[in-house]
Amino acid sequence: MDGRTIGILGGGQLGRMLTEAAHRMNLKIAVLEDSEDAPAKQINGRHPHVHGSFADPDAIRELARQCDILTIEIEHVNTEVLEEIAEVGLEITQEGQITRRRVKVQPNWRTIRTIQDKYLQKQHLRSLGVSTADSVALPANSAEALVEAAESLGYPLMLKSRTQAYDGRGNFPVRSPSDIPAALKALGKRPLYAEKWVEFACEIAVMVVKTEDGASEGGGDSTWKRNTLAYPVVETVHEDSICKLVYAPSPRTSLVSARCTREAEIIARRAVAGFWGKGVFGVELFLTDKNELLINEIAPRPHNSGHYTIEACQLSQYDAHLRAILDLPFPPGPGGEDSVRSSGVQLKSNTAAVMLNILGGSGPNSHIPICRRALETQGATLHLYGKGEARPGRKMGHITVIAETPHGAQRLIEPLIHMANRVRSEYRGQALGEAPQATALPPLVAITMGSDSDLPVLKPGISLLRDLGISYHVTITSAHRTPSRMFTFAQDAASRGIKVIIAAAGGAAHLPGMIAASTPLPVIGVPVKGSTLDGMDSLLSIVQMPRGVPVATVAINNSINAALLAARILGTHDAVIRERVLRYAQEMETGVLEKVEKLEELGWEEYVVRR
Amino acid sequence: MDGRTIGILGGGQLGRMLTEAAHRMNLKIAVLEDSEDAPAKQINGRHPHVHGSFADPDAIRELARQCDILTIEIEHVNTEVLEEIAEVGLEITQEGQITRRRVKVQPNWRTIRTIQDKYLQKQHLRSLGVSTADSVALPANSAEALVEAAESLGYPLMLKSRTQAYDGRGNFPVRSPSDIPAALKALGKRPLYAEKWVEFACEIAVMVVKTEDGASEGGGDSTWKRNTLAYPVVETVHEDSICKLVYAPSPRTSLVSARCTREAEIIARRAVAGFWGKGVFGVELFLTDKNELLINEIAPRPHNSGHYTIEACQLSQYDAHLRAILDLPFPPGPGGEDSVRSSGVQLKSNTAAVMLNILGGSGPNSHIPICRRALETQGATLHLYGKGEARPGRKMGHITVIAETPHGAQRLIEPLIHMANRVRSEYRGQALGEAPQATALPPLVAITMGSDSDLPVLKPGISLLRDLGISYHVTITSAHRTPSRMFTFAQDAASRGIKVIIAAAGGAAHLPGMIAASTPLPVIGVPVKGSTLDGMDSLLSIVQMPRGVPVATVAINNSINAALLAARILGTHDAVIRERVLRYAQEMETGVLEKVEKLEELGWEEYVVRR
Repeated sequence: MDGRTIGILGGGQLGRMLTEAAHRMNLKIAVLEDSEDAPAKQINGRHPHVHGSFADPDAIRELARQCDILTIEIEHVNTEVLEEIAEVGLEITQEGQITRRRVKVQPNWRTIRTIQDKYLQKQHLRSLGVSTADSVALPANSAEALVEAAESLGYPLMLKSRTQAYDGRGNFPVRSPSDIPAALKALGKRPLYAEKWVEFACEIAVMVVKTEDGASEGGGDSTWKRNTLAYPVVETVHEDSICKLVYAPSPRTSLVSARCTREAEIIARRAVAGFWGKGVFGVELFLTDKNELLINEIAPRPHNSGHYTIEACQLSQYDAHLRAILDLPFPPGPGGEDSVRSSGVQLKSNTAAVMLNILGGSGPNSHIPICRRALETQGATLHLYGKGEARPGRKMGHITVIAETPHGAQRLIEPLIHMANRVRSEYRGQALGEAPQATALPPLVAITMGSDSDLPVLKPGISLLRDLGISYHVTITSAHRTPSRMFTFAQDAASRGIKVIIAAAGGAAHLPGMIAASTPLPVIGVPVKGSTLDGMDSLLSIVQMPRGVPVATVAINNSINAALLAARILGTHDAVIRERVLRYAQEMETGVLEKVEKLEELGWEEYVVRR
Repeated sequence: MDGRTIGILGGGQLGRMLTEAAHRMNLKIAVLEDSEDAPAKQINGRHPHVHGSFADPDAIRELARQCDILTIEIEHVNTEVLEEIAEVGLEITQEGQITRRRVKVQPNWRTIRTIQDKYLQKQHLRSLGVSTADSVALPANSAEALVEAAESLGYPLMLKSRTQAYDGRGNFPVRSPSDIPAALKALGKRPLYAEKWVEFACEIAVMVVKTEDGASEGGGDSTWKRNTLAYPVVETVHEDSICKLVYAPSPRTSLVSARCTREAEIIARRAVAGFWGKGVFGVELFLTDKNELLINEIAPRPHNSGHYTIEACQLSQYDAHLRAILDLPFPPGPGGEDSVRSSGVQLKSNTAAVMLNILGGSGPNSHIPICRRALETQGATLHLYGKGEARPGRKMGHITVIAETPHGAQRLIEPLIHMANRVRSEYRGQALGEAPQATALPPLVAITMGSDSDLPVLKPGISLLRDLGISYHVTITSAHRTPSRMFTFAQDAASRGIKVIIAAAGGAAHLPGMIAASTPLPVIGVPVKGSTLDGMDSLLSIVQMPRGVPVATVAINNSINAALLAARILGTHDAVIRERVLRYAQEMETGVLEKVEKLEELGWEEYVVRR
């Protein structure tokens, strides 16, 4: 792209995937990491790497000398030297003259310094007006200090290390005063803080890209609309304090509703807007039992919860990070021009993703069968990181499964999750329990009726949808008795992920047409036969819609055909459903052919008798 | 994945993208190439590369010593030493003892040797029963020999170098005997052959993966069904004898029909099945003016026409090559289990791709604005190869644009094609002419009617589809007068890429229902009002379908609603169409609100007068 060289502090998997994205744009990378065989170094052949620690000032200075800009893939770096490099400059000796060259650091060293101390991070978030769990810094690592903190926070609480904490390391739950000695023993060597216990319904995460240097002051400030853009809100599932699964989107739409998603995006963007410098940030949130959103923590770099973006979005989080720190352009959102700010980087259309981390097991190759199985899985992409030894729980790679629907992705990833559970139960010496995973699937078809008396007519169609493995939601919305409920239902359906609406009504059957008038979705109308007129009233009320508002009308009382029509519509873009529609037709044909055979064998007279 | 190291002869862009795919599976790569800064070496940090020529026996032996298997990214390699390594083995000196170790070469050295001599390649294809253009080897590079060849082939003919020919280098058109001296002067240093001139309607290509070692004997042999699998058939557009554009799928479905696509796939698989060893093969074909398919040439390696697979298919051609040569598994096709053999690696659902090569221009940075523009383009992924100097016409990178439909991809890539044309016209000092490109788009909606007398009823609906930018095909299929035509139409519709069928009929209106009985697609029925019964006969004939075969019926004569219903169905999976449906509803609302205003302003009496 251009001649710039980017120095990365840290050479793990995040650095590796960042390097891969840089190569595609022909950007040069130099990696600072202790190991000569670090994952990121393995895939970077052209540039002299620096071998050394990302905490070592001299090694960082040596890296900076080779680069136009520095960035990080881990936040536990020496920020004093980053501050010096960015503000004062590197000493350059040339022909006996000493000059100084400043090298950009993105995100800003101040952001890294604030975030690497988790207590400071939370204080900063509070100053921005962003909700997090209440927390108290411990003035000393003593039982007295912790007891005092517990007085304001209550039990249980979480004792946390302020620094060097990741993947659950540095956390200790304190359920009662009797846990205090063990907690202090486990974490006592680092500065600590105590955090109020959060009962969460689920964990969600969102990657946010910051594209301008300045930091907002928070509060009513709306710079976040200008200087950030968001990726989709995803659901994360942790196990043993390590990320296990990421669902994009969350299949639990009853919990992680569209409203919750919008709020989470805004909170995350507001939070990131208050940090300094540019780049991607991984924002982890709790959705509490009381439906509150609290930020758990923020990573000022690419993040495990954003791996899915490689396959599921046009632009991966790695690509976005490079574009942000180098001031390269972003593509527009679907709204055209600069709409990426408002719409964010979205999932590719008709795309749902599930990411599963591949963790090391009890043996050096315990995780290999999962990798092999991933190669055999439709929609799966395998990413191995080139890590050395596989230790239990070590992140060796990940698998992203893509399908057209969250259902589809869930169906495909399930065997892999089972294998991962087996690997874990092996090294933990535990029986294979129920794994934490999201399972409820969002409905694709909404079925509604004017009155519960229409339900018997709809029943065969609903059963058929279930048999075809198509998710649905059944409700009642009367055009005449609950008009406002009906409008809300129709207007919200598309944003809830519904693809087709089936509406049944009898008599002056206004429901299907009124719903069609308030949604861009295809609406299938089922005329219900009433006590007079043989259903002709219902049929004509539904089918004879004015120009501009179509209702796909099926035969009187024929909910089976409504269900099959919905399946055909979904099948236009879902090969699995299309296959099932074909199979249904074949079974129907077989059924008739069997009768043909029987009729011809028995003769028609005998057939009538036996029938 | 496992501990194997793969040696690649050649380190250009194909080797680079192969290396990228290998890294994701944690496979080790060693690259043999003259330049220390070769594209593939730039992204491979861990392994000692071999600097040297892929034609140099010693360099190849040195590479083999480090590897478990050798493969190629270019066919102009020394096959004598590959034969020796694979058949006799490498000399290994250990503790004074000389032993030999055989190293696998994939594809087989015999395949590479046959293909690198284009005349031998064509002879071999003919022996397999695969059609190619007639050709004659020149016994000597003399005018007499060429005149004699022309006697059997006729003028114009193409004089071609048998070896070291690629990207149009090594070809010289001989239009009449007077061109002979210039042709021999241009190509005279290499062994030559003459080829019959092919007038082609378009060029198509297909990547084929060979997954077993043995070669079929051709003829009636059906091993190709077992030992090969195909990628989608694509249309390629060449300019200055270099690949410029690849369309997946071809937007010109009237030309590159479903039948032609199926045939091309079979020919390509039959051809590849007749070569030895494993790996991907790029097969280029001509579709002639007379609708014949001729193989132009085969490359025994990843190919420019397969770059689009990185974004558009689950499995890229590079990933497939590695799996094939290492006997790693493939994911199943949509039909389950081992169906990938029959269905091939398909495009991701609702995915169309266009690939544009980024070629060097008159200056070293002439191609950079296109790269920048690609970053600003929705659906575009940029791949730069890390090539050195940008020479005119040199392949510096490529851009793949993905959209839900061929329309969408075409729309997005167009500005980039214009920029590429400008770069070319600059260095060629030519005025900007019409660029060669495919433009016609495949229909999404098929509209059919029982009789041309139904056309006036359908006209408003067809016009609306056009206004909504939805592609359609209009035809006549009478259930009663052309029953077999109707069945064929209905049965082929889905495989032709049609998503929705609109069928109009009057009286005993059987057409919509009969079509619905022969397709899994959603069928919309438009009852046409006849001269008696006010259309009630048509309506009931269409709507009262038996259970199992739904027809989405709209109001009598209301083709507008049929079109809008089709748009809503397509809109369930196409955000652009959904947006247009919403806009249509808004315009309708605005139209009514304007009337409201006028009515209230004028009073109802005046309104009636003025109306």
